[in-house]
Amino acid sequence: MAAVDVPVALLGYGTVGAAVHRLLEESADEIERATGHRLRVTRALVRDTGKDRGFSPGPGVLTDDIQVILGDPSIQVVAEVMGGVEPAGSHVLELLRSGRPVVTANKQLVARRGTELFEAAAAGGVQLRFEASVCAAIPVIKVLRESLIVTNVHRVLGIVNGTTNFILSAMEEGRSYDDALAEAQRLGFAEADPTEDVGGLDAAAKTAILATVAFGSRVPLEWVEVEGIEGVTLDHVAAARALDMHVKLIGRATLVGDRVDVRVGPAFVDGHHPLAAVEGAFNAVMLHGDAIREITLEGPGAGGIETASAVVADMVSVVGTTGTGFLQNDPVWRHLERLPPGDLTSPFYLRLEVEDRAGVLARIAQELAAESVSVAQLVQQTADDRAVLHIVTHDAAAGRVNAALTAIRALPEARGEATAIPVISSRGVAELGWA
Amino acid sequence: MAAVDVPVALLGYGTVGAAVHRLLEESADEIERATGHRLRVTRALVRDTGKDRGFSPGPGVLTDDIQVILGDPSIQVVAEVMGGVEPAGSHVLELLRSGRPVVTANKQLVARRGTELFEAAAAGGVQLRFEASVCAAIPVIKVLRESLIVTNVHRVLGIVNGTTNFILSAMEEGRSYDDALAEAQRLGFAEADPTEDVGGLDAAAKTAILATVAFGSRVPLEWVEVEGIEGVTLDHVAAARALDMHVKLIGRATLVGDRVDVRVGPAFVDGHHPLAAVEGAFNAVMLHGDAIREITLEGPGAGGIETASAVVADMVSVVGTTGTGFLQNDPVWRHLERLPPGDLTSPFYLRLEVEDRAGVLARIAQELAAESVSVAQLVQQTADDRAVLHIVTHDAAAGRVNAALTAIRALPEARGEATAIPVISSRGVAELGWA
Repeated sequence: MAAVDVPVALLGYGTVGAAVHRLLEESADEIERATGHRLRVTRALVRDTGKDRGFSPGPGVLTDDIQVILGDPSIQVVAEVMGGVEPAGSHVLELLRSGRPVVTANKQLVARRGTELFEAAAAGGVQLRFEASVCAAIPVIKVLRESLIVTNVHRVLGIVNGTTNFILSAMEEGRSYDDALAEAQRLGFAEADPTEDVGGLDAAAKTAILATVAFGSRVPLEWVEVEGIEGVTLDHVAAARALDMHVKLIGRATLVGDRVDVRVGPAFVDGHHPLAAVEGAFNAVMLHGDAIREITLEGPGAGGIETASAVVADMVSVVGTTGTGFLQNDPVWRHLERLPPGDLTSPFYLRLEVEDRAGVLARIAQELAAESVSVAQLVQQTADDRAVLHIVTHDAAAGRVNAALTAIRALPEARGEATAIPVISSRGVAELGWA
Repeated sequence: MAAVDVPVALLGYGTVGAAVHRLLEESADEIERATGHRLRVTRALVRDTGKDRGFSPGPGVLTDDIQVILGDPSIQVVAEVMGGVEPAGSHVLELLRSGRPVVTANKQLVARRGTELFEAAAAGGVQLRFEASVCAAIPVIKVLRESLIVTNVHRVLGIVNGTTNFILSAMEEGRSYDDALAEAQRLGFAEADPTEDVGGLDAAAKTAILATVAFGSRVPLEWVEVEGIEGVTLDHVAAARALDMHVKLIGRATLVGDRVDVRVGPAFVDGHHPLAAVEGAFNAVMLHGDAIREITLEGPGAGGIETASAVVADMVSVVGTTGTGFLQNDPVWRHLERLPPGDLTSPFYLRLEVEDRAGVLARIAQELAAESVSVAQLVQQTADDRAVLHIVTHDAAAGRVNAALTAIRALPEARGEATAIPVISSRGVAELGWA
């Protein structure tokens, strides 16, 4: 079969855009073998066509006018790699409406404006692919939509932010949060303003997208309960290690009956759990389904070339399925309600500082019992006149654990902090061993 | 778009076949949403049409005559789930030649007769998909062929046999090899005759397929250097634990320049390596590529429903790409030579039992040096008149390590066994710590 030339366009020509262009050129033979087509970048939208660039886009490719791309009927796929919600969103909408398939690497765009985008794709009769928007080169969207098509996925657990995982891994080696953050910034894993990452907002956008695709129901970003890692201390890290656990920032999406819970926050992950071994800036996503039990995908969740690799794979998949109707559907096909955030149950680790005096343990046990929080394990450490209680609970509703903590903080014996962190374990919590 | 009815056929209607049929019926809506088509099993080839079956195939579906399927032009995809090299191979060849796309779960068939099969697929202008032939529901073939299309994958490391991983995990808990094997048999993880699994032959077929797809060059089963786990002792397991390592049966495919090395055998896997955490009957495959660094996929590598889930996903992918030419190519597109097996380098763990007398260490060091095997770490344990030497080497060629072992066994001071096991570590071996 003779190769068919397929003109494609890029929106954006920064690190990722230039890498997409380079990969398309370097891998033209591989792509032709798989698809019968050669993908050629004929247009790339940039703000400043005169700027000096590392990878030369070729004469006449750069344009600062989206109308040039919209008006070029030869262009068969467009990759959006410019980032930001606007003007990227308007461009993508116009392209989809005009019947042009789009591939995007933009998590904020997909998380915030997925409804509009998929409506436009359906109206235009074309695909919108977004693999690179979640965990770069880890092909979790393709696996969810194509490999697990007959598996009812009911739970997604992920380490979807490399910056926080790097910081928490460094804290396990004894560094303070501030030191670890500074190191991450020095190595380029964290931005100068790290709020998006350490505050859990980046993970929230990715987890919302994963939940939407896994459950087939739109999960708005506002539904995600978000807690960052700013409150994680070396005391928490040490307590986790004593339980053969690791503190990780976990994105969790859970189908409870026909309601959805999505949250991002620090968790204690059992050392035997597949996510426990994910170290440094790596990402991993674990999918629980009926037919497949669980599948975990791990790899680099960021990086220009990794992101570009996922963008190119999506472009190839679009070209490889054009005209078949395959995956032209909106991943959303049902409307599930949100589970009230306090209702989600899991085991918890509690760290309580109290005055070391007779009767205090009974008071705490009473407050926990009042909220039906039952204790699986308890270890007490004493120093001076103070006791630190480490408690692992059985499954308990998040809201009731918080209510118990509020009551415990109000006790006259309370000292220092009282914190709760969910526990993720494949074993029963009663079997955990304290070191 | 109105749903289009797509008649499909099964070769075989055992556990996997019946599960494929059930999943196609239960997930008909999901499949229609993704493809616009409803897949309906209209024929299933069995040996005995009168046999009692758990899931009813419906009237007129069962046939014991392949000609009924070959002669039915309405059938658009055929799934081969009968197993065995013959008659499955002849049936698949005829179907492909007649222009019918085929999905197979048969690792022996793909590993042994891939050349013929892919030639027939190319001649018939149709796809041959084989996701379920390697690690059941773990979508490693799709990820290699579709997601990593622009990444030059140069190394594949896998735990691709659940039986041996279960046995080795049980040995870490202190059970003997025989006890662990009996337990695996009792739980249904191992056959009454476990040779295929414990001897590494099952892993060899899967690793040959993975190498073929990853490197784009045919890797015949005969090229795979195979060692089973029968020689692994509790001494090895204890030595691994002392190094914070785990003994695993690893399938390894390595591109060395433009030559290929493929082997299956026990290895010491560093506790910080993603494969170290794979416990029990689970499988995992790690892909090293240029653009993506490494991606690891983990999940259940066997099971009727898991295998069926992968078969159905392949059938859906075939239907979703029909007429596009996508992935109609033979994954083999170049001819790479085999690396002589002795040439592959890696660090090794050596366990040597010798008489505890002056000068013996010097003799051993001399024999290692004669083969250019350099020592990174050495620990000596003494008991009675005997010393056990635990050695971790720097990178060394497998052939030279074996030559050194042969020389050491011939020393007058040699006692008991002298064994070498490759070490897989993401850290430098000099940094490993002995507990």
